[in-house]
Amino acid sequence: MSLPTFDGWTCPLPLQNYPNIVMGHGAGGKMMNDLIRHLFAVEFQNDLLGQLADSTTINLEASRLAFTTDSYVISPLFFPGGDIGELAVNGTVNDLSMSGARPLYLSAGFILEEGLPMETLGRIAASMARACKTADVQIATGDTKVVNKGHGDGIYINTSGIGLIPKDVDIRPTNARPGDVVIVSGTMGDHGIAIMSVREGLKFQSEIVSDTAPLNGLVQAMLKVTVDIHCLRDATRGGLAAVLNELADASKVGIKFEEAKVPLRPEVSAACEMLGLDPLFIANEGKLVAIVPENYAENILAVMRQLPTGRDSAIIGKVVEAHAGMVVARTSIGGSRVVDLPAGELLPRIC
Amino acid sequence: MSLPTFDGWTCPLPLQNYPNIVMGHGAGGKMMNDLIRHLFAVEFQNDLLGQLADSTTINLEASRLAFTTDSYVISPLFFPGGDIGELAVNGTVNDLSMSGARPLYLSAGFILEEGLPMETLGRIAASMARACKTADVQIATGDTKVVNKGHGDGIYINTSGIGLIPKDVDIRPTNARPGDVVIVSGTMGDHGIAIMSVREGLKFQSEIVSDTAPLNGLVQAMLKVTVDIHCLRDATRGGLAAVLNELADASKVGIKFEEAKVPLRPEVSAACEMLGLDPLFIANEGKLVAIVPENYAENILAVMRQLPTGRDSAIIGKVVEAHAGMVVARTSIGGSRVVDLPAGELLPRIC
Repeated sequence: MSLPTFDGWTCPLPLQNYPNIVMGHGAGGKMMNDLIRHLFAVEFQNDLLGQLADSTTINLEASRLAFTTDSYVISPLFFPGGDIGELAVNGTVNDLSMSGARPLYLSAGFILEEGLPMETLGRIAASMARACKTADVQIATGDTKVVNKGHGDGIYINTSGIGLIPKDVDIRPTNARPGDVVIVSGTMGDHGIAIMSVREGLKFQSEIVSDTAPLNGLVQAMLKVTVDIHCLRDATRGGLAAVLNELADASKVGIKFEEAKVPLRPEVSAACEMLGLDPLFIANEGKLVAIVPENYAENILAVMRQLPTGRDSAIIGKVVEAHAGMVVARTSIGGSRVVDLPAGELLPRIC
Repeated sequence: MSLPTFDGWTCPLPLQNYPNIVMGHGAGGKMMNDLIRHLFAVEFQNDLLGQLADSTTINLEASRLAFTTDSYVISPLFFPGGDIGELAVNGTVNDLSMSGARPLYLSAGFILEEGLPMETLGRIAASMARACKTADVQIATGDTKVVNKGHGDGIYINTSGIGLIPKDVDIRPTNARPGDVVIVSGTMGDHGIAIMSVREGLKFQSEIVSDTAPLNGLVQAMLKVTVDIHCLRDATRGGLAAVLNELADASKVGIKFEEAKVPLRPEVSAACEMLGLDPLFIANEGKLVAIVPENYAENILAVMRQLPTGRDSAIIGKVVEAHAGMVVARTSIGGSRVVDLPAGELLPRIC
């Protein structure tokens, strides 16, 4: 297993007396100022954070905004293919993208546990900064709190985000129509299995890495084919099964798909079999489900496959009038089964 | 000591099998859906949350937006005069208000500890809903995570917010000018001492209650006198001392004020003396510091005093050219002392 390396990161000078986070770093005084100025502001530098006010002023044209929030409480903080910081940026970028919005600004709220190594925080902040650059978004405002040792788990991160929704785009969970085609943007379950492999110390023949990635580029490319995309959803907690059930329910339609067409890495498939898990329920952090009109489906698929984040995209099924609110899979041996919403916890704290 | 009562709250029917939060409530499946639908959506009901999408679409006129974030990790969750939910709404409303913005939409990100009583969550959500009504804002989007028992402290809440800044308003920490007048909107230290009194089990002759309150109404009234308000800041963590130091530093000016003019409840003053604390460093949750041009100061003060949130407003000092970046207090016995930024923790986890 290889963890991401951050050899370049060194603790900023004014913080070097504090190898670990202490309560004072969240207390609103000089120590917190040092932390913000010398660590976060350096990592996230942009004009907006430079305003140093309680809230951030953003000039925008008249338009529709997307606004979302997500807290990240993942354990472990670093995992094959990513870390909590990258996840916190990509996850919120993706939530904005699922409305067709162009993500613009994020907030970052940190809940730090007393005793968190400063170096860990530095690595995570650096990772967030890199992810922002990749996704072309800015962290516009932030907040830091510290909780007593034993009342957190190193670091929790909340990111909220705002984005601009282009004119004529109207993507909602209620828009699926019978006849529409269901596309997934790549292999399912990579993130959840990557996390589980670290937690449980499992070894597979080839390493399974998280798929964490920003999907805004993919969505913008899809919208160039047509603005008439009906539904988009990133398949995070609850996996593909949760997304399909939510869309079927919201649009009052049935969804039918073929299990054999769902892209799966062989090693993820093997891990699921070994662990007795259904890959349809496993979380992803860089995959979306799209429901699109049939006449655009092939063109959209072709465009998706040209991008790294959509390379393994596939059409897996369609929207039907029958069994409204229900998702039915045709199994590889030719039978049918109802794919329900997961009841509760499968893998806790994977995002 | 009296805690707020929520006799009206009853656990929604589909949740009654779960007297306590379990890991599944944060797992993205049916149990989390139940929690969102039957608890949060009921409490926060508005058209935006009804969109049920990953992010929320907001139609706005062409204008400047304010965008802010804050996590609340307070202990205890309920305290004289308020609770974490009310605080999480008012705090973010106030952060937006300090740019002169009219707060419009909040996000709410919950990090819940396994084992949190459902009733506690219900009370907190109800309290947030009431606070939103009072402040005339809507919770537009939300997120729920659950962490293992022992890795949180009941509940942490992040609220982010967006607001619209009226044309011609330009309030920033860098705008203080020599000759400007410093106003505080009421008594200092109430929130911090209220929290401390519960934590330490202190008894005072009369109960000290938190000042938690939304300040958007107060700011809008002040802006009706003139849009030419230079700085606004709510005096939360670090208290009045932190705010004055930050403004002096940002504007590269000196600030002089008279200690005797700082409004203080006698019981807060007595508690501080007993505990050896300086009330200038104690947190507030419903008080602002304004720096305004001298010629408008008396009119602004008069308007502030007409509102409940500004009833005890007072002019406490002025901005000077001398000792740039430094805050100097004239003590009640006629001497002078430098009031520095608090170095670190005074009272951890009070907001």
